[in-house]
Amino acid sequence: MQPRALEAGSFHSVMSSTGPKRPGAGDSDASAEPAALQPRARATRLAILTAAAEHFARNGYHATSLDSVLADSGGTKGALYFHFASKEALARAVIAEMVQGWGDLRGHISRPGLDPLAALLALVDEVVRGLIEDPIARGGTRLLNDLPRRARDVGGHYGRGERDAAALLGQAAQAGLLRDGIEPALVARQIVALIAGHRQICDAAADRHSLRQRVDEAWTLLLPTIATDAWLATWRAAKPG
Amino acid sequence: MQPRALEAGSFHSVMSSTGPKRPGAGDSDASAEPAALQPRARATRLAILTAAAEHFARNGYHATSLDSVLADSGGTKGALYFHFASKEALARAVIAEMVQGWGDLRGHISRPGLDPLAALLALVDEVVRGLIEDPIARGGTRLLNDLPRRARDVGGHYGRGERDAAALLGQAAQAGLLRDGIEPALVARQIVALIAGHRQICDAAADRHSLRQRVDEAWTLLLPTIATDAWLATWRAAKPG
Repeated sequence: MQPRALEAGSFHSVMSSTGPKRPGAGDSDASAEPAALQPRARATRLAILTAAAEHFARNGYHATSLDSVLADSGGTKGALYFHFASKEALARAVIAEMVQGWGDLRGHISRPGLDPLAALLALVDEVVRGLIEDPIARGGTRLLNDLPRRARDVGGHYGRGERDAAALLGQAAQAGLLRDGIEPALVARQIVALIAGHRQICDAAADRHSLRQRVDEAWTLLLPTIATDAWLATWRAAKPG
Repeated sequence: MQPRALEAGSFHSVMSSTGPKRPGAGDSDASAEPAALQPRARATRLAILTAAAEHFARNGYHATSLDSVLADSGGTKGALYFHFASKEALARAVIAEMVQGWGDLRGHISRPGLDPLAALLALVDEVVRGLIEDPIARGGTRLLNDLPRRARDVGGHYGRGERDAAALLGQAAQAGLLRDGIEPALVARQIVALIAGHRQICDAAADRHSLRQRVDEAWTLLLPTIATDAWLATWRAAKPG
């Protein structure tokens, strides 16, 4: 499903970047704002976040203890409480890190050389990779269920996905790649729901690796419905395998 | 979306039935098997289950206390512990009740007079109604995320949905209602994922009433892809509104 041309960094490498964070992207619950941290402190913070995300993904918010996170992160209790005021602050920071990762991903993939529909396929491919492989994305999606909801978390996750997909589909429509009458926003909502639903079903069955096959199946049904025959012919010719 | 011809009992009325339970349908964690209960004890059990499901749907498993369930159910602590040995037993019983409700629903809707594709639309319509209105279905789906997973719960929920949808789509294919090359099992997986995904997105946004509109949108994209022009013409002519 992933076009040969795609060379964007993987979700994991984007998420693990130790480059400067955007101002305001950190969680205001945290004791220290990521933007103000030195590289070593940022690395410590990311190690704690990643260890916490693994625990949250596996056991959920309520069954995760800060002591078990601490043991896996290799850090000290002092470092943990310097970066995160509480377990909830830590969990909110995992969600914020995930949401920022989705934004970075979009920036990496939307670039010259990929038509808008191919860019959408590449974006979904990287999202799926993140949901299968990346602890931050796996922990973050579970935390969205476990924690009391916040509008900015939900808007940054599902809402951003719908907006990004709708924008690419809108560009695809303008470029004449979509069939007549296809509504970008409506299709975008179905794509995000398909990914969210298949992820949930795979999680429930403890079989997250079948997520890719399930999403590929969704495309085999969806693409002939929305894309022109000309685009489909080009895409099928370029597909690996 | 719901065909005029549909007269099946609503999800809620099916779920609230005080008729005899199927042997083995109850949760073996519970202290008393529902099949053995007198009508009054069954009504008490259902009142406790419903009150618990409301709490689980609103606050999740971990933030729900048996005392708050007890206060809302109007029952006694003795009655609660007679029926359910623990909070987990109560939660598992909510899931079991939901899973049985899906099975009863399928039996009510699959009947003479509705072609298999119209029956699938009616079934999805009732599932959506349950997910919006019925405390047992709303609490049960949330508990599937909150509790450690069990194969029989997952199989009875998503797995049953996929099997039921695939069976109806298989009958639709045999009756010549589907376009050539449409695979019933593949389409069934997308339908269940769309419902699960839209439900999750609506829940996250605290906007469960938009679930119906979102699923209706999914059908406007999906039906022209899978159904023959003849079926679509008949369906559009019969649609209310």
